[in-house]
Amino acid sequence: MSDDSRAPAQPAGAAVRVQPLEGIPAVEPGDDLAALLADAIDRAGGLTEGDVVVVAQKVVSKAEGRLVEARTPAEREALIRAEARHIRRRRDELFIVETRQGFVCATAGIDHSNTPEQGVVILLPLDPDASARKLSAGLGERFGLSEPPVIISDSFGRAWRTGTVDVAIGVAGLAPLIDLRGQRDWAGRELESTQVAVADELAAAAHLVMGKADGVPGALVRGVAIERRSGHATELVMPPERDLFP
Amino acid sequence: MSDDSRAPAQPAGAAVRVQPLEGIPAVEPGDDLAALLADAIDRAGGLTEGDVVVVAQKVVSKAEGRLVEARTPAEREALIRAEARHIRRRRDELFIVETRQGFVCATAGIDHSNTPEQGVVILLPLDPDASARKLSAGLGERFGLSEPPVIISDSFGRAWRTGTVDVAIGVAGLAPLIDLRGQRDWAGRELESTQVAVADELAAAAHLVMGKADGVPGALVRGVAIERRSGHATELVMPPERDLFP
Repeated sequence: MSDDSRAPAQPAGAAVRVQPLEGIPAVEPGDDLAALLADAIDRAGGLTEGDVVVVAQKVVSKAEGRLVEARTPAEREALIRAEARHIRRRRDELFIVETRQGFVCATAGIDHSNTPEQGVVILLPLDPDASARKLSAGLGERFGLSEPPVIISDSFGRAWRTGTVDVAIGVAGLAPLIDLRGQRDWAGRELESTQVAVADELAAAAHLVMGKADGVPGALVRGVAIERRSGHATELVMPPERDLFP
Repeated sequence: MSDDSRAPAQPAGAAVRVQPLEGIPAVEPGDDLAALLADAIDRAGGLTEGDVVVVAQKVVSKAEGRLVEARTPAEREALIRAEARHIRRRRDELFIVETRQGFVCATAGIDHSNTPEQGVVILLPLDPDASARKLSAGLGERFGLSEPPVIISDSFGRAWRTGTVDVAIGVAGLAPLIDLRGQRDWAGRELESTQVAVADELAAAAHLVMGKADGVPGALVRGVAIERRSGHATELVMPPERDLFP
């Protein structure tokens, strides 16, 4: 995918291509999500070494049956508290919490859009890295690859910035952080500036083709230089001793 | 760019393509950056309506002469304070500040990597939206387009997450936020969850082809559904009354 038919005499550099995974039916608890994704990947041209599969958290949670009823504000608040290790901030009905998985986000990542029925909400997967590894194993078997890279993404708000961006909450088959040697922060804080959260950038890129259509719960990112290893999304969580905004 | 030569019978959905802008020489104060970018865009196949040009802050700052000497820790701290409206947090030499432009980031966005000389640091552009508009005007003239979308990107750390991701600090010719109707947060906090920071997702996607090579100070993103208007990166800054992490 490094050729561009529009490129003139001088060869274009390696491009990255983000393709939507389309035609995936509504996911139900117990569905074989890896098989549904594999069919969509087949329609998008197949999976080759180094391609990254990004899957929206919602369909992972649905396949895993992480659906519960919550109709009243009190039931919703109880759910948020049950899914949270700590409440970091609260203003009216907005809760910013540290989830049981360690992520800091609004409403413990609980979502009520695109649920099968009104009053049913979707919780985060209990162990999104395990979910990613399971999908990676299924896709690897189907396409004859060893632990193909899989990212489970979710839309998070951010401190100090408006709007959401998609980030990685589960990974398999790639390092979520990459080191940029020589990019040391001039104050000498190497950890703050030499590591790029490439899994988060991949999740954000994938969302460019997933964001507007509920029927696109995944994307394929081709042509990115990644480090292939058994990474964990928890590497993207700031450890307490470095967290300046507890 | 919606055709994929590998796609089988069933047509693939509209893909997004991220191309590095290569062959741009080292930028010096006073350089016509729009012309340098236009040459690189020509080599990448030209600019067409809807293509988004993402440019690294460093080269924008260099072209604008935002270079100053700072050799000692005291000089560096003085610079951070001069570029900051407020110090939000400090731990040893790490400062998280609100910059004069309104962004919250480490070291006021000041960078010492890739500077022409040792002891010279790079400050953020004084008005990155104005910088983006100027580049957009130059590119528009060259390619016969009206205000083509331009994003100036920088690598920011985040609260609660490790590593950096690229975000938009200047925009022209596109809305940095897009509304996803029907994606209302179930707690009813519409503003928290219906708006996607698409300019930040574009910056992150662009960084996938820029991150590892100092010689790639920009990228072209093709095929993204954006809203074309005269947006401002300051729309991406959380207003004080909604900021839960002051």
